[in-house]
Amino acid sequence: MQVCTEAISLEATGFCDIRDITPEVERMLRERGLIEGSVLLFVGGSTGALTTIEFEPGAVADLRAAIERLLPQAIPYAHDARWGDGNGFSHVRAALLQADLEVPVAEGNLLLGTWQQIVFCDFDNRSRRRKIICQLRGRFD
Amino acid sequence: MQVCTEAISLEATGFCDIRDITPEVERMLRERGLIEGSVLLFVGGSTGALTTIEFEPGAVADLRAAIERLLPQAIPYAHDARWGDGNGFSHVRAALLQADLEVPVAEGNLLLGTWQQIVFCDFDNRSRRRKIICQLRGRFD
Amino acid sequence: MQVCTEAISLEATGFCDIRDITPEVERMLRERGLIEGSVLLFVGGSTGALTTIEFEPGAVADLRAAIERLLPQAIPYAHDARWGDGNGFSHVRAALLQADLEVPVAEGNLLLGTWQQIVFCDFDNRSRRRKIICQLRGRFD
Repeated sequence: MQVCTEAISLEATGFCDIRDITPEVERMLRERGLIEGSVLLFVGGSTGALTTIEFEPGAVADLRAAIERLLPQAIPYAHDARWGDGNGFSHVRAALLQADLEVPVAEGNLLLGTWQQIVFCDFDNRSRRRKIICQLRGRFD
Repeated sequence: MQVCTEAISLEATGFCDIRDITPEVERMLRERGLIEGSVLLFVGGSTGALTTIEFEPGAVADLRAAIERLLPQAIPYAHDARWGDGNGFSHVRAALLQADLEVPVAEGNLLLGTWQQIVFCDFDNRSRRRKIICQLRGRFD
Repeated sequence: MQVCTEAISLEATGFCDIRDITPEVERMLRERGLIEGSVLLFVGGSTGALTTIEFEPGAVADLRAAIERLLPQAIPYAHDARWGDGNGFSHVRAALLQADLEVPVAEGNLLLGTWQQIVFCDFDNRSRRRKIICQLRGRFD
Protein backbone atom coordinates (compact mmCIF):
# COMPACT_ATOMS: atom_id res chain seq x y z
CA MET A 1 0.00 0.00 0.00
CA GLN A 2 1.05 3.53 -0.76
CA VAL A 3 -0.27 7.00 0.01
CA CYS A 4 -0.40 10.10 -2.19
CA THR A 5 -1.68 13.49 -1.01
CA GLU A 6 -3.21 15.90 -3.54
CA ALA A 7 -5.69 18.78 -3.47
CA ILE A 8 -8.69 19.88 -5.47
CA SER A 9 -9.10 23.62 -5.91
CA LEU A 10 -12.39 25.36 -6.75
CA GLU A 11 -14.14 28.72 -6.57
CA ALA A 12 -17.19 28.58 -4.33
CA THR A 13 -19.70 31.28 -3.52
CA GLY A 14 -20.52 30.47 0.12
CA PHE A 15 -24.01 30.61 1.67
CA CYS A 16 -24.51 26.86 1.33
CA ASP A 17 -23.04 26.54 -2.15
CA ILE A 18 -23.16 22.77 -2.80
CA ARG A 19 -20.75 21.59 -5.51
CA ASP A 20 -20.30 18.21 -7.17
CA ILE A 21 -16.58 17.33 -7.00
CA THR A 22 -16.94 13.70 -8.18
CA PRO A 23 -15.40 14.32 -11.64
CA GLU A 24 -12.27 15.89 -10.10
CA VAL A 25 -11.87 13.00 -7.65
CA GLU A 26 -12.31 10.47 -10.47
CA ARG A 27 -9.77 12.27 -12.64
CA MET A 28 -7.24 12.16 -9.80
CA LEU A 29 -7.82 8.42 -9.31
CA ARG A 30 -7.09 7.73 -12.96
CA GLU A 31 -4.07 10.02 -13.16
CA ARG A 32 -2.49 8.41 -10.10
CA GLY A 33 -3.59 4.87 -10.93
CA LEU A 34 -5.21 3.88 -7.63
CA ILE A 35 -6.62 0.37 -8.10
CA GLU A 36 -7.89 -0.65 -4.66
CA GLY A 37 -8.08 1.38 -1.47
CA SER A 38 -9.80 4.65 -0.65
CA VAL A 39 -9.86 8.40 -1.10
CA LEU A 40 -9.91 10.54 2.02
CA LEU A 41 -11.36 13.98 1.30
CA PHE A 42 -10.86 16.72 3.87
CA VAL A 43 -11.72 20.42 4.07
CA GLY A 44 -8.82 22.24 5.70
CA GLY A 45 -10.91 25.07 7.14
CA SER A 46 -13.82 25.51 9.52
CA THR A 47 -16.59 26.76 7.24
CA GLY A 48 -16.92 23.90 4.73
CA ALA A 49 -18.00 20.26 4.81
CA LEU A 50 -18.28 17.15 2.63
CA THR A 51 -21.01 14.60 2.09
CA THR A 52 -22.70 12.58 -0.66
CA ILE A 53 -26.09 13.17 -2.28
CA GLU A 54 -27.94 12.54 -5.53
CA PHE A 55 -26.72 15.68 -7.24
CA GLU A 56 -29.89 16.91 -8.93
CA PRO A 57 -31.37 20.39 -8.30
CA GLY A 58 -34.32 19.10 -6.26
CA ALA A 59 -32.36 17.08 -3.69
CA VAL A 60 -29.72 19.82 -3.47
CA ALA A 61 -32.43 22.45 -2.79
CA ASP A 62 -33.95 20.15 -0.15
CA LEU A 63 -30.58 19.78 1.60
CA ARG A 64 -30.06 23.55 1.56
CA ALA A 65 -33.56 24.11 2.96
CA ALA A 66 -33.03 21.53 5.73
CA ILE A 67 -29.73 23.15 6.76
CA GLU A 68 -31.33 26.61 6.85
CA ARG A 69 -34.26 25.27 8.87
CA LEU A 70 -32.05 23.46 11.40
CA LEU A 71 -29.17 25.95 11.60
CA PRO A 72 -30.57 29.32 10.52
CA GLN A 73 -28.36 32.09 9.24
CA ALA A 74 -30.33 34.96 10.82
CA ILE A 75 -30.21 34.16 14.53
CA PRO A 76 -27.63 35.63 16.95
CA TYR A 77 -24.29 33.78 17.16
CA ALA A 78 -21.73 34.29 19.94
CA HIS A 79 -18.95 33.96 17.35
CA ASP A 80 -20.26 37.06 15.57
CA ALA A 81 -20.69 38.98 18.82
CA ARG A 82 -17.02 38.35 19.66
CA TRP A 83 -15.35 38.68 16.27
CA GLY A 84 -17.80 40.48 13.98
CA ASP A 85 -17.17 37.96 11.21
CA GLY A 86 -20.85 37.45 10.48
CA ASN A 87 -20.21 33.77 9.76
CA GLY A 88 -21.21 32.15 13.07
CA PHE A 89 -23.82 30.13 11.18
CA SER A 90 -21.08 28.87 8.83
CA HIS A 91 -19.02 27.46 11.70
CA VAL A 92 -21.91 25.60 13.31
CA ARG A 93 -23.02 24.15 9.98
CA ALA A 94 -19.50 22.96 9.17
CA ALA A 95 -19.00 21.42 12.63
CA LEU A 96 -22.22 19.42 12.31
CA LEU A 97 -21.75 18.24 8.71
CA GLN A 98 -18.02 17.69 9.22
CA ALA A 99 -14.83 18.16 7.26
CA ASP A 100 -13.99 14.56 6.37
CA LEU A 101 -15.39 12.00 3.93
CA GLU A 102 -13.87 8.72 2.82
CA VAL A 103 -14.92 6.78 -0.26
CA PRO A 104 -13.70 3.25 -1.02
CA VAL A 105 -12.14 2.36 -4.38
CA ALA A 106 -11.97 -1.02 -6.12
CA GLU A 107 -10.94 -1.98 -9.66
CA GLY A 108 -9.95 1.65 -10.16
CA ASN A 109 -13.45 3.04 -9.46
CA LEU A 110 -15.07 4.97 -6.63
CA LEU A 111 -17.66 2.64 -5.04
CA LEU A 112 -20.45 5.22 -5.20
CA GLY A 113 -24.04 4.35 -6.04
CA THR A 114 -25.34 5.17 -9.49
CA TRP A 115 -27.19 8.25 -8.22
CA GLN A 116 -24.66 9.32 -5.60
CA GLN A 117 -22.17 12.14 -5.94
CA ILE A 118 -19.49 13.60 -3.66
CA VAL A 119 -20.30 17.19 -2.74
CA PHE A 120 -18.41 20.03 -1.11
CA CYS A 121 -20.63 22.38 0.91
CA ASP A 122 -19.30 25.92 1.21
CA PHE A 123 -21.00 27.41 4.28
CA ASP A 124 -18.97 30.63 4.49
CA ASN A 125 -20.50 34.09 3.99
CA ARG A 126 -18.40 35.12 0.97
CA SER A 127 -16.95 33.82 -2.27
CA ARG A 128 -13.47 32.38 -2.10
CA ARG A 129 -11.06 29.89 -3.60
CA ARG A 130 -11.31 26.61 -1.71
CA LYS A 131 -8.87 23.74 -1.42
CA ILE A 132 -10.01 20.21 -0.60
CA ILE A 133 -7.38 17.69 0.44
CA CYS A 134 -7.64 14.48 -1.56
CA GLN A 135 -5.51 11.66 -0.19
CA LEU A 136 -5.32 8.40 -2.15
CA ARG A 137 -4.33 5.28 -0.21
CA GLY A 138 -3.98 1.69 -1.29
CA ARG A 139 -2.62 -0.36 -4.14
CA PHE A 140 -1.61 1.59 -7.26
CA ASP A 141 -0.87 0.18 -10.70
CA MET B 1 -0.35 -3.19 5.02
CA GLN B 2 -2.92 -4.70 2.69
CA VAL B 3 -6.45 -3.87 1.58
CA CYS B 4 -9.39 -6.19 0.97
CA THR B 5 -12.80 -5.00 -0.29
CA GLU B 6 -15.93 -6.96 0.63
CA ALA B 7 -19.65 -6.24 1.00
CA ILE B 8 -22.38 -6.99 3.48
CA SER B 9 -25.82 -7.67 2.03
CA LEU B 10 -29.09 -7.33 3.95
CA GLU B 11 -32.83 -6.85 3.46
CA ALA B 12 -34.01 -3.55 4.95
CA THR B 13 -37.50 -2.12 5.12
CA GLY B 14 -36.80 1.60 4.70
CA PHE B 15 -38.55 4.38 6.64
CA CYS B 16 -35.67 4.71 9.12
CA ASP B 17 -35.04 0.99 9.56
CA ILE B 18 -31.99 0.90 11.87
CA ARG B 19 -30.06 -2.39 11.72
CA ASP B 20 -27.16 -3.68 13.80
CA ILE B 21 -24.46 -4.91 11.39
CA THR B 22 -21.72 -5.43 14.01
CA PRO B 23 -21.87 -9.26 13.90
CA GLU B 24 -21.40 -9.31 10.11
CA VAL B 25 -18.46 -6.90 10.33
CA GLU B 26 -16.86 -8.98 13.09
CA ARG B 27 -17.32 -12.19 11.12
CA MET B 28 -15.60 -10.60 8.12
CA LEU B 29 -12.66 -9.49 10.30
CA ARG B 30 -12.14 -13.02 11.57
CA GLU B 31 -12.54 -14.68 8.16
CA ARG B 32 -10.01 -12.34 6.58
CA GLY B 33 -7.68 -12.25 9.59
CA LEU B 34 -7.27 -8.48 10.00
CA ILE B 35 -5.08 -7.92 13.07
CA GLU B 36 -4.45 -4.16 13.19
CA GLY B 37 -5.90 -1.44 11.00
CA SER B 38 -9.47 -0.39 10.29
CA VAL B 39 -12.72 -1.20 8.58
CA LEU B 40 -14.20 1.40 6.25
CA LEU B 41 -17.94 0.93 5.86
CA PHE B 42 -19.71 2.74 3.04
CA VAL B 43 -23.25 2.84 1.68
CA GLY B 44 -23.10 2.94 -2.11
CA GLY B 45 -26.41 4.75 -2.56
CA SER B 46 -27.99 8.03 -1.56
CA THR B 47 -30.77 6.92 0.82
CA GLY B 48 -28.81 5.10 3.53
CA ALA B 49 -26.29 6.03 6.23
CA LEU B 50 -24.05 4.54 8.90
CA THR B 51 -23.36 5.45 12.52
CA THR B 52 -22.86 3.86 15.94
CA ILE B 53 -25.31 3.68 18.83
CA GLU B 54 -26.11 1.53 21.86
CA PHE B 55 -28.37 -0.88 20.00
CA GLU B 56 -31.26 -1.29 22.43
CA PRO B 57 -34.88 -0.53 21.50
CA GLY B 58 -35.07 2.66 23.58
CA ALA B 59 -32.04 4.43 22.12
CA VAL B 60 -32.96 3.27 18.62
CA ALA B 61 -36.50 4.66 19.03
CA ASP B 62 -35.02 7.94 20.30
CA LEU B 63 -32.77 8.23 17.26
CA ARG B 64 -35.70 7.55 14.92
CA ALA B 65 -37.82 10.15 16.73
CA ALA B 66 -35.02 12.75 16.54
CA ILE B 67 -34.56 12.17 12.80
CA GLU B 68 -38.31 12.49 12.18
CA ARG B 69 -38.46 15.66 14.28
CA LEU B 70 -35.47 17.28 12.54
CA LEU B 71 -36.07 16.03 8.99
CA PRO B 72 -39.79 15.20 8.74
CA GLN B 73 -41.12 12.84 6.14
CA ALA B 74 -44.39 14.71 5.52
CA ILE B 75 -43.22 18.14 4.34
CA PRO B 76 -42.83 19.14 0.68
CA TYR B 77 -39.52 18.21 -0.96
CA ALA B 78 -38.30 19.65 -4.28
CA HIS B 79 -36.88 16.22 -5.18
CA ASP B 80 -40.40 14.77 -5.07
CA ALA B 81 -41.87 17.65 -7.05
CA ARG B 82 -39.32 17.03 -9.83
CA TRP B 83 -39.15 13.24 -9.91
CA GLY B 84 -42.22 11.95 -8.08
CA ASP B 85 -40.08 9.46 -6.13
CA GLY B 86 -41.66 10.33 -2.80
CA ASN B 87 -38.29 9.86 -1.10
CA GLY B 88 -37.05 13.44 -0.82
CA PHE B 89 -36.91 13.01 2.95
CA SER B 90 -34.69 9.92 2.48
CA HIS B 91 -32.09 11.86 0.50
CA VAL B 92 -31.81 14.71 3.01
CA ARG B 93 -31.55 12.30 5.95
CA ALA B 94 -28.83 10.29 4.22
CA ALA B 95 -26.85 13.41 3.25
CA LEU B 96 -26.85 14.65 6.85
CA LEU B 97 -26.05 11.32 8.54
CA GLN B 98 -23.59 10.35 5.83
CA ALA B 99 -22.57 7.25 3.94
CA ASP B 100 -19.19 6.53 5.53
CA LEU B 101 -18.03 5.17 8.89
CA GLU B 102 -14.60 3.94 9.88
CA VAL B 103 -13.87 1.79 12.91
CA PRO B 104 -10.34 1.01 14.11
CA VAL B 105 -9.18 -2.56 14.73
CA ALA B 106 -6.43 -3.82 17.05
CA GLU B 107 -5.49 -7.34 18.18
CA GLY B 108 -8.14 -8.62 15.77
CA ASN B 109 -11.04 -6.73 17.40
CA LEU B 110 -13.18 -3.74 16.51
CA LEU B 111 -12.35 -0.98 19.02
CA LEU B 112 -16.00 -0.31 19.86
CA GLY B 113 -17.20 0.47 23.37
CA THR B 114 -19.01 -2.25 25.31
CA TRP B 115 -22.42 -0.71 24.59
CA GLN B 116 -21.70 0.55 21.08
CA GLN B 117 -22.84 -1.12 17.86
CA ILE B 118 -22.42 -0.28 14.18
CA VAL B 119 -25.78 0.46 12.56
CA PHE B 120 -27.01 0.84 9.01
CA CYS B 121 -29.91 3.30 8.66
CA ASP B 122 -32.18 2.63 5.70
CA PHE B 123 -33.95 5.91 4.98
CA ASP B 124 -35.61 4.92 1.71
CA ASN B 125 -39.40 4.67 1.27
CA ARG B 126 -39.55 0.99 0.33
CA SER B 127 -38.07 -2.40 1.22
CA ARG B 128 -35.04 -3.46 -0.73
CA ARG B 129 -31.86 -5.51 -0.65
CA ARG B 130 -28.97 -3.31 0.47
CA LYS B 131 -25.24 -3.69 0.02
CA ILE B 132 -22.75 -2.08 2.37
CA ILE B 133 -19.14 -1.90 1.27
CA CYS B 134 -16.78 -3.22 3.93
CA GLN B 135 -13.12 -2.49 3.24
CA LEU B 136 -10.49 -3.98 5.56
CA ARG B 137 -7.12 -2.24 5.64
CA GLY B 138 -4.02 -2.95 7.65
CA ARG B 139 -1.93 -5.83 8.85
CA PHE B 140 -3.41 -9.32 8.31
CA ASP B 141 -2.25 -12.58 9.83
CA MET C 1 2.73 1.89 4.94
CA GLN C 2 2.42 1.00 8.59
CA VAL C 3 -0.23 1.32 11.28
CA CYS C 4 0.13 2.20 14.95
CA THR C 5 -2.80 2.30 17.42
CA GLU C 6 -2.64 4.62 20.44
CA ALA C 7 -5.14 6.33 22.73
CA ILE C 8 -5.61 9.79 24.18
CA SER C 9 -6.98 9.92 27.71
CA LEU C 10 -8.75 12.93 29.23
CA GLU C 11 -11.13 13.93 32.00
CA ALA C 12 -14.36 15.37 30.61
CA THR C 13 -17.37 16.77 32.44
CA GLY C 14 -20.20 15.65 30.14
CA PHE C 15 -23.24 17.80 29.24
CA CYS C 16 -21.73 18.85 25.91
CA ASP C 17 -18.20 19.44 27.18
CA ILE C 18 -16.26 20.34 24.00
CA ARG C 19 -12.49 19.81 24.31
CA ASP C 20 -9.66 20.70 21.95
CA ILE C 21 -7.51 17.57 21.52
CA THR C 22 -5.35 18.90 18.67
CA PRO C 23 -2.18 19.31 20.80
CA GLU C 24 -2.36 15.68 21.98
CA VAL C 25 -2.85 14.43 18.42
CA GLU C 26 0.06 16.55 17.20
CA ARG C 27 2.32 15.30 19.99
CA MET C 28 1.51 11.71 19.07
CA LEU C 29 2.34 12.38 15.40
CA ARG C 30 5.76 13.74 16.32
CA GLU C 31 6.56 11.00 18.83
CA ARG C 32 5.70 8.27 16.34
CA GLY C 33 7.18 10.04 13.34
CA LEU C 34 4.25 9.81 10.92
CA ILE C 35 5.27 11.67 7.75
CA GLU C 36 2.42 11.09 5.27
CA GLY C 37 -0.91 9.36 5.84
CA SER C 38 -3.71 10.02 8.27
CA VAL C 39 -4.90 9.87 11.84
CA LEU C 40 -8.16 8.04 12.53
CA LEU C 41 -9.73 9.24 15.77
CA PHE C 42 -12.53 7.16 17.29
CA VAL C 43 -14.61 7.35 20.47
CA GLY C 44 -15.07 3.82 21.83
CA GLY C 45 -18.38 4.53 23.56
CA SER C 46 -21.86 5.70 22.66
CA THR C 47 -22.06 9.09 24.38
CA GLY C 48 -19.18 10.98 22.75
CA ALA C 49 -18.35 12.32 19.28
CA LEU C 50 -15.59 14.03 17.30
CA THR C 51 -15.59 16.93 14.86
CA THR C 52 -13.57 20.02 13.95
CA ILE C 53 -14.34 23.67 14.72
CA GLU C 54 -12.59 27.00 15.23
CA PHE C 55 -11.92 26.48 18.92
CA GLU C 56 -12.78 29.90 20.33
CA PRO C 57 -15.41 30.42 23.06
CA GLY C 58 -17.97 32.02 20.72
CA ALA C 59 -18.07 29.27 18.09
CA VAL C 60 -17.98 26.58 20.79
CA ALA C 61 -20.94 28.22 22.60
CA ASP C 62 -22.80 28.40 19.27
CA LEU C 63 -22.25 24.69 18.63
CA ARG C 64 -23.45 23.82 22.14
CA ALA C 65 -26.54 26.00 21.66
CA ALA C 66 -27.33 24.40 18.28
CA ILE C 67 -27.05 20.90 19.73
CA GLU C 68 -29.33 21.79 22.65
CA ARG C 69 -31.84 23.40 20.26
CA LEU C 70 -31.89 20.43 17.88
CA LEU C 71 -31.55 17.59 20.40
CA PRO C 72 -32.81 18.94 23.74
CA GLN C 73 -31.80 17.40 27.03
CA ALA C 74 -35.16 17.91 28.76
CA ILE C 75 -37.59 15.99 26.57
CA PRO C 76 -38.67 12.38 27.23
CA TYR C 77 -36.37 9.67 25.88
CA ALA C 78 -37.35 6.00 25.53
CA HIS C 79 -33.83 5.01 26.59
CA ASP C 80 -34.39 6.69 29.96
CA ALA C 81 -37.85 5.14 30.36
CA ARG C 82 -36.34 1.66 29.87
CA TRP C 83 -33.05 1.97 31.72
CA GLY C 84 -33.30 5.01 33.99
CA ASP C 85 -29.87 6.21 32.90
CA GLY C 86 -31.01 9.76 32.29
CA ASN C 87 -28.66 10.02 29.30
CA GLY C 88 -31.02 9.35 26.41
CA PHE C 89 -30.13 12.78 25.02
CA SER C 90 -26.43 11.82 25.12
CA HIS C 91 -26.97 8.76 22.93
CA VAL C 92 -28.93 10.59 20.26
CA ARG C 93 -26.40 13.44 20.12
CA ALA C 94 -23.51 11.00 19.81
CA ALA C 95 -25.24 8.97 17.08
CA LEU C 96 -25.86 12.09 15.00
CA LEU C 97 -22.43 13.70 15.44
CA GLN C 98 -20.64 10.34 15.18
CA ALA C 99 -17.72 8.60 16.77
CA ASP C 100 -15.17 8.78 13.96
CA LEU C 101 -13.02 11.52 12.45
CA GLU C 102 -10.08 11.19 10.09
CA VAL C 103 -7.53 13.91 9.44
CA PRO C 104 -4.90 13.67 6.68
CA VAL C 105 -1.19 14.19 7.41
CA ALA C 106 1.54 15.35 5.04
CA GLU C 107 5.16 16.41 5.71
CA GLY C 108 4.61 15.41 9.33
CA ASN C 109 1.70 17.84 9.90
CA LEU C 110 -2.05 17.55 10.31
CA LEU C 111 -3.66 19.19 7.26
CA LEU C 112 -6.03 21.32 9.34
CA GLY C 113 -6.90 24.90 8.43
CA THR C 114 -5.29 27.71 10.43
CA TRP C 115 -8.44 28.24 12.49
CA GLN C 116 -9.55 24.63 12.70
CA GLN C 117 -9.12 22.37 15.71
CA ILE C 118 -10.05 18.74 16.45
CA VAL C 119 -12.60 18.52 19.25
CA PHE C 120 -13.98 15.75 21.40
CA CYS C 121 -17.61 16.31 22.47
CA ASP C 122 -18.57 14.59 25.71
CA PHE C 123 -22.36 14.28 25.64
CA ASP C 124 -22.78 12.08 28.72
CA ASN C 125 -24.57 13.23 31.88
CA ARG C 126 -21.63 12.87 34.25
CA SER C 127 -17.90 13.47 34.55
CA ARG C 128 -15.65 10.60 33.59
CA ARG C 129 -12.27 9.65 32.22
CA ARG C 130 -12.51 9.27 28.45
CA LYS C 131 -10.29 7.39 26.02
CA ILE C 132 -10.10 8.36 22.36
CA ILE C 133 -8.51 5.87 19.98
CA CYS C 134 -5.86 7.50 17.81
CA GLN C 135 -4.66 5.32 14.96
CA LEU C 136 -1.77 6.56 12.80
CA ARG C 137 -1.49 5.06 9.32
CA GLY C 138 0.96 5.74 6.53
CA ARG C 139 4.64 6.33 5.97
CA PHE C 140 6.74 6.84 9.11
CA ASP C 141 10.30 8.17 9.30
